[in-house]
Amino acid sequence: MSARVRVPATSANLGAGFDCIGIAVDRWLVASVTLGGTGISIRRGGTLNAVRVRADQDLFTRGFRAACAAGGASPAGTGAIIEATSDIPVGCGLGSSAAAIVAGALLADAALELGLSRAKILEIGTAIEGHPDNVAPAIHGGAVLSVHTPAGLVSSSLRVSAAIELLIAVPPFPNNTKAARAALPHMLPHSDAVVAANRAAALVQGLATGDGALLGAALDDVLHVPFRRARIPGYDAVVAAAQGAGAFGATLSGAGSAILAIASRDRSAAVGSAMIAAWSSLGVEADLVRSAHPVPGAAVSRLAQLNRPVPSELS
Amino acid sequence: MSARVRVPATSANLGAGFDCIGIAVDRWLVASVTLGGTGISIRRGGTLNAVRVRADQDLFTRGFRAACAAGGASPAGTGAIIEATSDIPVGCGLGSSAAAIVAGALLADAALELGLSRAKILEIGTAIEGHPDNVAPAIHGGAVLSVHTPAGLVSSSLRVSAAIELLIAVPPFPNNTKAARAALPHMLPHSDAVVAANRAAALVQGLATGDGALLGAALDDVLHVPFRRARIPGYDAVVAAAQGAGAFGATLSGAGSAILAIASRDRSAAVGSAMIAAWSSLGVEADLVRSAHPVPGAAVSRLAQLNRPVPSELS
Repeated sequence: MSARVRVPATSANLGAGFDCIGIAVDRWLVASVTLGGTGISIRRGGTLNAVRVRADQDLFTRGFRAACAAGGASPAGTGAIIEATSDIPVGCGLGSSAAAIVAGALLADAALELGLSRAKILEIGTAIEGHPDNVAPAIHGGAVLSVHTPAGLVSSSLRVSAAIELLIAVPPFPNNTKAARAALPHMLPHSDAVVAANRAAALVQGLATGDGALLGAALDDVLHVPFRRARIPGYDAVVAAAQGAGAFGATLSGAGSAILAIASRDRSAAVGSAMIAAWSSLGVEADLVRSAHPVPGAAVSRLAQLNRPVPSELS
Repeated sequence: MSARVRVPATSANLGAGFDCIGIAVDRWLVASVTLGGTGISIRRGGTLNAVRVRADQDLFTRGFRAACAAGGASPAGTGAIIEATSDIPVGCGLGSSAAAIVAGALLADAALELGLSRAKILEIGTAIEGHPDNVAPAIHGGAVLSVHTPAGLVSSSLRVSAAIELLIAVPPFPNNTKAARAALPHMLPHSDAVVAANRAAALVQGLATGDGALLGAALDDVLHVPFRRARIPGYDAVVAAAQGAGAFGATLSGAGSAILAIASRDRSAAVGSAMIAAWSSLGVEADLVRSAHPVPGAAVSRLAQLNRPVPSELS
């Protein structure tokens, strides 16, 4: 039995939605699995060529094996060949890790007919990734709020105005997520925490209504960006360029290195160009990702036999 | 020229929406004004009988005079008689102050034909009250998010599920809002600020969808309630009783003393009874306010001559 999956990129935080809000982005990881043999081997293409990790520690493998365990299949006894390619930048705050974990878990679920629910796939992905904000929109698509409640982790799809567009400028250097997390302070003034909460509410409402002032406040985060932005050369210039070109605001995509702006559709082309130009003037050749809502979530298909290599499907 | 206004009660914060979210509640202040004479005199009825403040320092007067100033009328030169009555508990976290300010401003606007916008009335009320979270829903009705942005204060009406109902238990003792604010700490762990932001997002999404788990997390605030609840005798017992009867959660209304629960409509009667019973078993005879969404905002009518005394209109 074989299966094929495609999983979108994701951008987490969106400013004030720290550790709880993420949105699917129109870049894709495509992967297929063929069961057989012993152990798991991985053939990588596209941006995944840059990944240097042993197959047994790869995130595809970890997602695959966790799904096997959750579905009652023997993780160690299931051999598989995974072929994967991607146009999601790796290590830049666009959810490449979450996409690989979700792809591995969904491939196991489909190829081995484990019957896992999307909620179970989310639980598996969150356990491996450590937080749900990329995993949830990678699975469900669109923008998703994930909150820990006494009833467990709740993921809820957010309304997003059709009038807005995401512009993401991706520099050629990755970020170190662990170091970015270590940069956060232990204590915060209470007044900053109040501002952070108000702006998190503004983000949910701003996404739903497209209100530019609310989105501008929401993208001006006080919980994490002030402690992380110095790690990204050119951050202030690119954010200022986006705002100067008419964006409602701009902020780190995840923990960076990519920078995300939100703009109305009629300003989005100008905003994207301004961001790329700002980085270019500093000697950084960034790549632009434009993404209108809604981007669908992961899609999987079960196949008796794969006839074509997956990489050729990517445009 | 005379005018009459009715303004709803409001409940601010709703747990995690500290200082930014409020909702109109089905209790009302009704007031009328007749221009003439010198100075402002106030005749109070209903819950306003408990107010002991000189007319020139009364919140009606302050709202009235601020609107005069904003509209180009002479605040000092405008004499008026204000008759007001209310069934909004005073000093218990149900927006009695905001209602009086908004009433005074709207009466001046209508009687003197000042032509002030609702946005201007909000600005006037926020300046006097110090924060917008009661003033905004008193004016606009429903639930309102108010956020300070670079473009100024933005108030945005929130979607609220028709499946939920507010239950508010009001004890016979008021709270001291200034002391409640002074109880807040200067610093907070960063991890608590993250939880606060996540739950503020959960509040906006929970109100819109009626998702009980999201509302439960949202009502379990970490920014202000932990530092204020000890000031309200019986707080823990009433909250536990509400949850035990099926409420999604319960929290302070504003800074208290009233306690607000949110429940599905089929559980609301049981929740309200349980809250009153819990307080009663501690010797506190509380009053129950039930409020389904949406409660409209302030309504004003201009009259050539008032024919009836306003208090008789209250049921």
